[in-house]
Parts: sequence; C-alpha cells; structure tokens
Amino acid sequence: MTSPIKIAVAGASGRMGRAILPLLAADPDFAFVGGIGREGSAGDGLIDRSAAIGAADVILDFTTGRAAAELVGLCASAGGPALVIGATGFEPDELERIAEAARTIPILRSGNFSIGVNMLVGLVAQAARALPAHGWDIEILEAHHNRKIDAPSGTALMLGEAAAEGRGVSLASVERRGRDGITGERPPGEIGFAVLRAGGLVGEHSVLFAAAEEVVTLSHSALDRGMFARGALAAARWIAGRAPGEYAMGDVLGLV
Amino acid sequence: MTSPIKIAVAGASGRMGRAILPLLAADPDFAFVGGIGREGSAGDGLIDRSAAIGAADVILDFTTGRAAAELVGLCASAGGPALVIGATGFEPDELERIAEAARTIPILRSGNFSIGVNMLVGLVAQAARALPAHGWDIEILEAHHNRKIDAPSGTALMLGEAAAEGRGVSLASVERRGRDGITGERPPGEIGFAVLRAGGLVGEHSVLFAAAEEVVTLSHSALDRGMFARGALAAARWIAGRAPGEYAMGDVLGLV
Amino acid sequence: MTSPIKIAVAGASGRMGRAILPLLAADPDFAFVGGIGREGSAGDGLIDRSAAIGAADVILDFTTGRAAAELVGLCASAGGPALVIGATGFEPDELERIAEAARTIPILRSGNFSIGVNMLVGLVAQAARALPAHGWDIEILEAHHNRKIDAPSGTALMLGEAAAEGRGVSLASVERRGRDGITGERPPGEIGFAVLRAGGLVGEHSVLFAAAEEVVTLSHSALDRGMFARGALAAARWIAGRAPGEYAMGDVLGLV
Amino acid sequence: MTSPIKIAVAGASGRMGRAILPLLAADPDFAFVGGIGREGSAGDGLIDRSAAIGAADVILDFTTGRAAAELVGLCASAGGPALVIGATGFEPDELERIAEAARTIPILRSGNFSIGVNMLVGLVAQAARALPAHGWDIEILEAHHNRKIDAPSGTALMLGEAAAEGRGVSLASVERRGRDGITGERPPGEIGFAVLRAGGLVGEHSVLFAAAEEVVTLSHSALDRGMFARGALAAARWIAGRAPGEYAMGDVLGLV
Repeated sequence: MTSPIKIAVAGASGRMGRAILPLLAADPDFAFVGGIGREGSAGDGLIDRSAAIGAADVILDFTTGRAAAELVGLCASAGGPALVIGATGFEPDELERIAEAARTIPILRSGNFSIGVNMLVGLVAQAARALPAHGWDIEILEAHHNRKIDAPSGTALMLGEAAAEGRGVSLASVERRGRDGITGERPPGEIGFAVLRAGGLVGEHSVLFAAAEEVVTLSHSALDRGMFARGALAAARWIAGRAPGEYAMGDVLGLV
Repeated sequence: MTSPIKIAVAGASGRMGRAILPLLAADPDFAFVGGIGREGSAGDGLIDRSAAIGAADVILDFTTGRAAAELVGLCASAGGPALVIGATGFEPDELERIAEAARTIPILRSGNFSIGVNMLVGLVAQAARALPAHGWDIEILEAHHNRKIDAPSGTALMLGEAAAEGRGVSLASVERRGRDGITGERPPGEIGFAVLRAGGLVGEHSVLFAAAEEVVTLSHSALDRGMFARGALAAARWIAGRAPGEYAMGDVLGLV
Repeated sequence: MTSPIKIAVAGASGRMGRAILPLLAADPDFAFVGGIGREGSAGDGLIDRSAAIGAADVILDFTTGRAAAELVGLCASAGGPALVIGATGFEPDELERIAEAARTIPILRSGNFSIGVNMLVGLVAQAARALPAHGWDIEILEAHHNRKIDAPSGTALMLGEAAAEGRGVSLASVERRGRDGITGERPPGEIGFAVLRAGGLVGEHSVLFAAAEEVVTLSHSALDRGMFARGALAAARWIAGRAPGEYAMGDVLGLV
Repeated sequence: MTSPIKIAVAGASGRMGRAILPLLAADPDFAFVGGIGREGSAGDGLIDRSAAIGAADVILDFTTGRAAAELVGLCASAGGPALVIGATGFEPDELERIAEAARTIPILRSGNFSIGVNMLVGLVAQAARALPAHGWDIEILEAHHNRKIDAPSGTALMLGEAAAEGRGVSLASVERRGRDGITGERPPGEIGFAVLRAGGLVGEHSVLFAAAEEVVTLSHSALDRGMFARGALAAARWIAGRAPGEYAMGDVLGLV
C-alpha cells in the first residue's frame, strides 16, 4: 500500500478551495497538510508557506496570478513540491517565472479543471485536424443559466480556439457570432457560435462537425460545479512525483 | 368501402405540386383528377378550372396569393369543392375574399403543412400559457443547412409567435436575437433565439422552457422535405366533406 | 396586499418535508404554521393535527397512505383546510375516503410534483391523441444515475400511460422493452422504452413521435430534485381557497 | 493542374456502386474508366478485369469476399492499381491473400465508409483510454427507422468494441443490453446499449461518458445514406499513389 499524497492548498477559503477540502478529506489517497495563510500566519488550520513547502507533495494554488508566481518561485528554490495552479490573470513576467521554475519542479496550470471539458477540447482539436473545412462546417452551441452576463462562454471560446488551431487558422479570422437577419449562405471555414440562456442550466457545450450527409457532435454537460474540484485532484494525483516540466490538463488525460 | 377523394392540384408543376403527385398516385384514398392549367388550357394532363371545380372534392392550391384568391371565388360561386391553400403572399382584400368564400365552402390555409411543425406550434402555445414567465425562460434554437440565407427561420419565428401569444405579449416586445458580448443577466419574459448553420441539416427546431431546477424541451426534426406534401394530403383528407368555414392545420390535429 | 397562505406540513422530517421548509421560509406568499407530529405531540416546532387543522389554509401531506387518509377524514369533518397529498401507497378503501372527503374540501393528490414532468405528461397525451398510430411511432427514452435499481423509471411509465391513453389503448398491450437481437420490423402502434444508466444524471425523459419524414420530441430534464418541492408549493398556492373536489397537477397547469 | 484519378468500380450495379457513379461523374478529381463485369464481358459500359487493372489508378470493390479476394490477387500480380474494398464476408484464407497482396499494392478495407462514423469510432477509443472505468460510465444509444430488424446496430457494436478496446477489456465481458425490471445498481465498467426504433430515422448513434458531475457525449447523425459513397471516394483519393500496405478508414482521417 502506497502512502497518501500530502496536499497543501493556497486559497483554501475561496470557492475552489472550499470545494476541494471535503473531497480531500474523503479520499484516502490524499492527506491534507493545511491551508496556506500569509507568511507567519498560523492557527485556524492554516500553515505558512515554508511549512507547506516542507510538508506537501503537491500544492494546489487557487489564489491570484501574482501570489501564485511568488509561491512557484519559493517551491522551485526549495526543489519541490509539485504545483497545480488554478489561479488566472498572470502577467507575462509571471508566466516567465513559472516557465523557469518548471525546469526544477513539475507544474500544471489550467483555467478549467473539468476532466470532461478538457477531454472535449482535445477531441475537438483532433476532429478539426482530420475533417477538411471544405465539406465540414463547425458550429459551437452553448447554454447556461440566466444569471450569466457574457456570451459566448469562456469554455465555448476555448473550444473555438481548439477547432481553429486544429485547422491551422486563427479563431478571430473565422468566427461568426450572433447570426440574425439576412446572413447570406454560410461560407466554408466559418466557425459559428450560438448561445442559449435559460433557467438553472449549469453549462452545456456542443461542437458540431456537419457535412452534407452526416453530422458528428461532441458535447459536454455539467451536472455540478464540483467537477472542477474533482479535476484539480486528478491533476494533483497525476503530477505527484512527475519529472520537472510545464504540464496541462491534456497531459493528465494522455491526449496527443 | 368508401370511394376515393377526388383531388385537383393548382400549381402542379411547382415544388409542392411535384412532391404531391406521386403521393396521390400511391394512395388509394385519393383519385387525381388533374392539374389545373390556365383557362382554356388542356392536354399535358392539365384540365381547366371549370373542369376541376366540377370534378374535384378538394382542390390543393400552391400558386400565388392572387391566383388562389381568384380560384377561391370561383369555387364559392359553384358551391364547392373544398380548398387547401398553400399559396402565400395574400393582399388584405384577397384575404377578405377568402373569408367571405368560407361562408359557403370549407377552406384550409397554411404557410407550413408539416404535421409535426403544426403539432409543435400548438404544444408550445399551450406550454407558454401554463408556465409563468417569472420562473420559466423560453429559448428557441434552430439549425439548418449552410445554404439558408436568413435567420432565424420562418418556423422559428412562428414558434416564437406561438410562445408570445401563449403569454399574452407581442413577440417584438420580448424577443432577443444574436446574444454576443456583455449581455447582462437574462431578463424574465425574454424569448431568445439561437441559430446554427451547418452542412446538410434539413431543419431542426427546439423550444426550451427552463426553470431553476428543470427544463422542458419541445423539438421538431425534419428528415425529408416530403413531410410538407404529406401534411397537405392529410389536410385534404380532413377537409373533404367538412362544413363551410376557415380552418388551419391546428384543426386537422384537433388542437385546442 | 393579500395575507400569506398558512401552511402546515405532515411528514416534515422526510425528504420532501425537509426540501419544502426552506422554500416556505423564503417565500413571503406563505406562512409556515408548523410540522404535524403525532396526536398530543408538541415542541420541536411540531404541532398536533387538531392545531394544524385549526390554523392552516393548506396542509401538505408527505406521510403514508394510511396516515394521509386519516388526516383527510379529520380535515373533511372540520370543513377544511385544503390538502395537497404526496403520500403514496393507498389502499382502495383509503382512496374512497379521499373521494368522499373531496365533496367537502379541495384535495390535490400527485405521485410527482414536478411542474415540468406534469406538463410533459399533458403534452404527450395530447400529441398521442392527435398523431395516428399508423404513421407515427412513439418511443420513450429515459436516463438516470448509476444508483437507480429499476428500469424503466416510474416517470417513463407514467409518460407511456399518457401516450397509450391518448391512443385509447392499454400500455400493457403495446409496450416494448429492452429490444435486443433479431427483433423484426417495428410494428405500428408499439410504444418502445429505452434506458440509460450513467454517472450522476439526475433524470432525463424524452418521448419521440416519429413519422417517415419528421420527428417531434418532447423532453424533460431534471437539474435538481428541488423541483419536486417547488411544484408542491405551486400546488398549495393553487388549491388555497379553491372549491371542494379532487384535483391533479394537470389542473394546476390548466391542461385539458 | 494534376490529372484526375482513374477509377474502376467492381459491383457497380449494387447499392454502393449505383450511389458512387453519379458522384464520380460530378467530381473533376476523378475519371471513371468503367464498371467491372465478368471476365470477357463488355458493352453496357462494362470492361473486364484485365482492362480495369490496366486502366485504373484505384479500383473500388463492392462485390463479395470471394470475388474481391480474387481481384486483389490479380491486382497484386500486376503491380497495381490500388484497391478500396467495401466487400464483406471474407474467409480467413481470403484475408490472408489480401494481407499478402498488401506487400505489393496499397489496400484499404472497411465495413463502413462513413467519414463521420469512423471519426466517432476513433474519438470513442481515445476517450475510453483516457477516462477511467471507475468514475466514468459508458453508454451507447442508437436510433434507426422502423424497418430495421436487428438491435443494437452494427455501428453501435463497432462503437462498443472501440470503447472496450480503449479500456483494454473485451466487449462481451462488459456489455449490458436491454435493461428492464429490477436491474440493481449499475456496476462500474459496464458498457450499456439502448435502442430506439422510430419512423424514418436514418441512423443516430451517441456514446456517453458520464461521471458523477459531468457528461461527455460523442454522437453521429446520418442525414443521407450517400455519406457511405462519399467516404469511399475520400478513401480512393487518399490511397491513390500511396505506398503498399493494409490501411483502414482511420488512416484516411489521420487518427492515432
């Protein structure tokens, strides 16, 4: 029997942190060594960064770009532990510090830890590479709850990027949003977006690849936002003991 | 055994006419008495209007608003036959002539003879009446082939009208098309439209009624455009021998 | 401003009861007068039946067939309040007592309080009445989480009953479950069931009406089991002050 | 400008052959050199095998296992042309002859030439490899027209094989068909099949990968059986001038 993976969490009191703690507690594969407070802080179940770096096999960081970049530097200097970073909003110099640290320690960074969404992104890229733009139209449909204030969703755009990249074009040059009125025939190569806002829908995404005589549809449906926490733990399990380097969720899934 | 319903077709060489003739030929419930040509025309399987009025139980008319209104007047003067009208583009005075003729003969007029689409329209109206706008968001999604040049489809708008009418509002006052960018939260009462254009899709329509904790979706999928011809024949079968009056496809379906 | 509807709940500590109490607390249209304990019980926020009958406009009962039938009798003798009954498992004589009580007080009984499911049942019955069995095949698909131990779901069977009733046949005489192997061509009139069990799916139901050239699909998707509690409160709001009689959720929705 | 690919067709009067001829005629990338009749036959637009082998870049064969194996041997002896084989029902010794011939000439063999179905098979295998059986349930749903006499469809079983192979198990050991009655909880690792038969549905297949909190669905929808002919031509275009070897539709799509 292997010993559990020791986990510390930065940003433990945020939404992702609070979602992860009960999962950690319930899973014998993991041992929670503490939430990371400010330097010198202690008590309330919090430990400071030095203690976390000393005790953890993997640190999950759901703070901010700046705080995460700082923590990454400290971990690299100490030669460990591994990092799973869900923080977003990095400045270019912070990304460089992460890249440099990844020569010493393994680091996985993602803006969306859902296993299913990452699976979908990988499959969409592949289908877009295989199915020629002349003959196969790509359309992206997303549906979310009525409190969402922007459209299309970030995940829909991520899927659009994957499709465009698979075709070797920039999304900006082929995207088509909000069709309405006299649109003319659909040009080949276009990537269309359609948006539904309705009730309490957690989040639905579909990517259609449609030819004259057949359609392939790749979809994701979120049942519960807990999927993000579960995916972050899958990343932690995967990265523990891994060689130094920068990784993404696609690596966890073994996608090419 | 009842004798077959005798059918004449005006506009027999148009798209609908050509789709209907083989169905008529294959169905022992019907006897085709001829396509209606211009007055005095004959040969080529065509008969003139007087002959058609004398011989037919039901005339199907897929011509133009003006020609159809004229034919309706002649039929009413003759005290029959019944009429199924798929022509569109009527002037107000032509509609008045139809209403007047309907005191003497039964007339069914429709812009879309698909049984399924008309079923969906009826169910949507009913659901919209039953489910309050505060609590139930209505969204309409349609998908068609890449040669379609306008959006949303006429059928999607017909569904939107049915939903708005069910709620006692005008569609223009609540419709929301082409969501894109910072949209803000979805206001209650809105009826949203989303559009997909992809490959050879014949025609898909879905109307969502979404609450916080559940969603009802009413959909129609066209497999083959032959559905229009088949629905027109169902209308002909239904109207034969019916009392004078103006009817719609909803009457054929027995919808309230 | 109207005064709130006074509600008592029998079976307040069961699953439905516990789901309803926070909704009642949050809704100014309702005033919770107490959970109903055994005769003579008090404290713990519980009141006895006599007190509840005296104080409430509507009693929601989620107990058992026997307990509910007893409570109904007491309410009828007292000339009120109205009852919304979610208890199941009634003996024939208990159903008779309810029918008799309904001459004096309004009673609504349902095995499933979801507004959306009841909407779907009503629409399915209507579509089945309108679309002839020769030409329109009915199929029912349901999908639930992997812990469900029976198939098809009770709701799928309820939809099948509604479809069969709409066609004037008994479900038992036309149902077809678990197709596998050499099935032969599908006979007209059959009502087929298909079952998926997967992950954490809350509950999906679709009823297809499929012709040669078009398909109408009526679906329900449960996002959260809270829909049952919400529907029970809609029933309470509807029945308060209503004339004596036996009612069903279809009446709340105004379905014919 | 490159010269067109010269194509001969064995089995030109069968269903696939008849679907392919008009596509060949309409596509300037191809030149049709003739249908292959029996040895010595000529006229009626037919040429004999020797003539076809001499004139064609690619032969499409939609005959029988025995006839195709014979033709393959003749092509290999002649050092060409390439072969695309849609014939089925090969005996083991015939498959050996094909394998041997493939050392000399390029041969692609497939039981289903739909580009979309083959894409789906490849993506399903990949998702099944990436998503662990503990945590992700696989279910396969298929829907076809009411004249289909067996269930599940061959394509559904092919998808099941791909999923099982991706998981390193045999389909026979994990498949679950026709759930009905008291089934008990769904065991992890099971691959379930569900079947709909309705109206004129051409062919729908969906593979669900469902976790507790999210679902990935990979689907194919056939709009027109012409997709098979079109895929066979894509195979012909791909194999022309290719190195000797045995190929499959996955190679045409560049799937790994």
